[in-house]
Amino acid sequence: MERHRIVILGGGFGGLSAAHALKNAPVEVTLLDRCNYHLFQPLLYQVATGSLSPANIAAPLRQILRRRKNTKVLLAEAVDIDATNRRVILSDGEVPYDTLIVATGSTHQYFGHDEWEQFAPGLKTVEDATAMRRRILLAFEAAEREPDPAKLKSWMTFVIVGGGPTGAELAGALGEIAHDTLTHDFRDIDPSQTQIILVEGTDRALPTYPPKLSEAARKMLVRLGVTVRTGAMVTDVKADSVTIRDGDRTESIPTRTVLWAAGVLASPLGIILFKKADAPVDKLGRVLVSPDLSVPGHPEIFVIGDLANFSHQTGKPLPGVAQPAIQQGHYVGKVIRARLQNKKLSPFHYFDKGNLATIGRGAAVADLNWLQISGLPAWLIWIFIHLLYIVQFQNRLLVLLQWAWLYITFDRSARLITGENPLPLDL
Amino acid sequence: MERHRIVILGGGFGGLSAAHALKNAPVEVTLLDRCNYHLFQPLLYQVATGSLSPANIAAPLRQILRRRKNTKVLLAEAVDIDATNRRVILSDGEVPYDTLIVATGSTHQYFGHDEWEQFAPGLKTVEDATAMRRRILLAFEAAEREPDPAKLKSWMTFVIVGGGPTGAELAGALGEIAHDTLTHDFRDIDPSQTQIILVEGTDRALPTYPPKLSEAARKMLVRLGVTVRTGAMVTDVKADSVTIRDGDRTESIPTRTVLWAAGVLASPLGIILFKKADAPVDKLGRVLVSPDLSVPGHPEIFVIGDLANFSHQTGKPLPGVAQPAIQQGHYVGKVIRARLQNKKLSPFHYFDKGNLATIGRGAAVADLNWLQISGLPAWLIWIFIHLLYIVQFQNRLLVLLQWAWLYITFDRSARLITGENPLPLDL
Repeated sequence: MERHRIVILGGGFGGLSAAHALKNAPVEVTLLDRCNYHLFQPLLYQVATGSLSPANIAAPLRQILRRRKNTKVLLAEAVDIDATNRRVILSDGEVPYDTLIVATGSTHQYFGHDEWEQFAPGLKTVEDATAMRRRILLAFEAAEREPDPAKLKSWMTFVIVGGGPTGAELAGALGEIAHDTLTHDFRDIDPSQTQIILVEGTDRALPTYPPKLSEAARKMLVRLGVTVRTGAMVTDVKADSVTIRDGDRTESIPTRTVLWAAGVLASPLGIILFKKADAPVDKLGRVLVSPDLSVPGHPEIFVIGDLANFSHQTGKPLPGVAQPAIQQGHYVGKVIRARLQNKKLSPFHYFDKGNLATIGRGAAVADLNWLQISGLPAWLIWIFIHLLYIVQFQNRLLVLLQWAWLYITFDRSARLITGENPLPLDL
Repeated sequence: MERHRIVILGGGFGGLSAAHALKNAPVEVTLLDRCNYHLFQPLLYQVATGSLSPANIAAPLRQILRRRKNTKVLLAEAVDIDATNRRVILSDGEVPYDTLIVATGSTHQYFGHDEWEQFAPGLKTVEDATAMRRRILLAFEAAEREPDPAKLKSWMTFVIVGGGPTGAELAGALGEIAHDTLTHDFRDIDPSQTQIILVEGTDRALPTYPPKLSEAARKMLVRLGVTVRTGAMVTDVKADSVTIRDGDRTESIPTRTVLWAAGVLASPLGIILFKKADAPVDKLGRVLVSPDLSVPGHPEIFVIGDLANFSHQTGKPLPGVAQPAIQQGHYVGKVIRARLQNKKLSPFHYFDKGNLATIGRGAAVADLNWLQISGLPAWLIWIFIHLLYIVQFQNRLLVLLQWAWLYITFDRSARLITGENPLPLDL
């Protein structure tokens, strides 16, 4: 008898968790990803700010799954889903499935202004992170060589759009870079004069956290020299400025470096499922899944993680972070196992373990639901949890070592400008 | 009184050593580089083969020189030298000098066949290393998905051109990847079937080493599954094959991955010095320097490292490795100090401490002049020396940890395919 064929699209938290949940099951699993590695996205901002190397937060998918004899890894890109004939169309082939798990996550979006992307890079991939690192470091290099005071100031102004965890963490790291890491590195500029502006549309930073923790985070950011602008919307982004609207006031801030940490949009696979499997989708392109995370009308297709809109529990979608994806991957693995034994499972239930964000050395906020703390204790919890969830043991050691080093010396050793030749500088 | 202005072109071993030698001297030093980091090139092949991350072997120049108050770092590219008016022309400005130290090193060359470069990447920069890593890893990914047996074999054939230290070290690392690191990673191919061919024009691998050590290296390579083809010249490189001539026999080897570790050529600054300062150059573009490493007729211009042809001592140029560059940088710093005090120094004298090359786990060859050893003792010396010369203390720890891990597990964690989307695969 042919084994039941399961195809998992995406090797992120959701896809990997599903693969693990199918360990030793009498099935044939194919995990497909465009990258040959699993990426620990919550620490991507540390790559963008030179604290860690890409390999520290990435682990080869083949290596993670090497002992899973029922699982095969494929480096490939899914471009379409043929739900009728149950096959995934690749850019270079196709793969048939009996059950499909779609876990392709999300990408950043510019609210209809895709032209902003060239000036305001987002942070979703390793390439995004090294490109952002390059921009940040080049801004200081250009400042060091810029004779014109107005231009100099715009090189030393950094605007971060979006006050959620990624934006706040980026702003905090930039604050440390300016005030501590680079202190003795330049001769003609004083890095501590750097202006860091965090722009958030709602009335507070970290709007998904309890107000008390938002306020704690704001204080930490201010201590690191970050200006937090709440209730402010970005209305334009250019090569040398960003325009924000704050109530009735519109202001143009001269800056050469805008970092995007605002909107996300579901991966294009959501829309493909809408077209090919009549999947209902929300306005961000997320699939409105059934209580068992399958696509309505297609019990053989599951959608998990950022791409799923699962609102059955709280009336609104689960947050686009690692925990829901991991739990959903695990659940779907169990559902498939149960089906093979003709059993039924109760609907998916999300257990919210809490949320953590770090803002500089020894400072973080932790919302554990039963406990809300900030400062050093939250930071220690943050470190512990993040090290725990980094997939490879070797990476745990390497990351811990670099964090310890950073804590003691403020030194960020991965401050490399890589990629195409950046010269001549755009002075 | 204005301070004596010294401009150093290049932040490699030579340039950095010169900057250090001028510590606390009453001069104004400007160190100029296209990269914002010093790169420990001897370990670049470990980045190309996924053992280390770029940041592990690179250190920001500003950070290395942060405490040198008389030294300024400039991220810039020198495009010309105006020897008459004593200024360096940048792609985005110019810098005047009283004394110039040129330490811009070398690049790889294809013996007049620049069209080979696209198929046979060399290894001089961080970008070269990540591009080479990408090619190696993609070859295995393509092999896993290749249905055609002949094409499959060409994906699993790696040809390394040049049997010097870089070529031998690359071949050894590839042997380990094929036979140990990837053992359990694939389902449809057996990585141990990989063919690795090292092509060397002379009659032995590591031709600059004593014959006894060449023979030891050859045995180590064979043990790692490498085929060593000596007395063989590459006559053509294409996308899917490499042609080699071995005496009268010409053979075309089907392969999708050719790695270039053969010829080097001096950086273009040598030719610029020839044109603008009448500097005598050899056929590789290296400057034939005076006994004090200055350009004949231009005592205010020094050339050190790979760009210098210093034949006064042995009748032939010093090898293009780190030691001569470091010693020359140090010497030139001392010459400049002496001149400022109207003293004279005896000519440069190179002290050859020996040569080391590693070929896989626990295996290396060491030629310490007074002692020639191979195997584990040589490998331990190799580790000790390399860790000693890595500039940053933090990197020493990180590299040591990753080597220890590699030694125990054969695991190469930095096996990331990064850069532009590699899909669809070229099957």
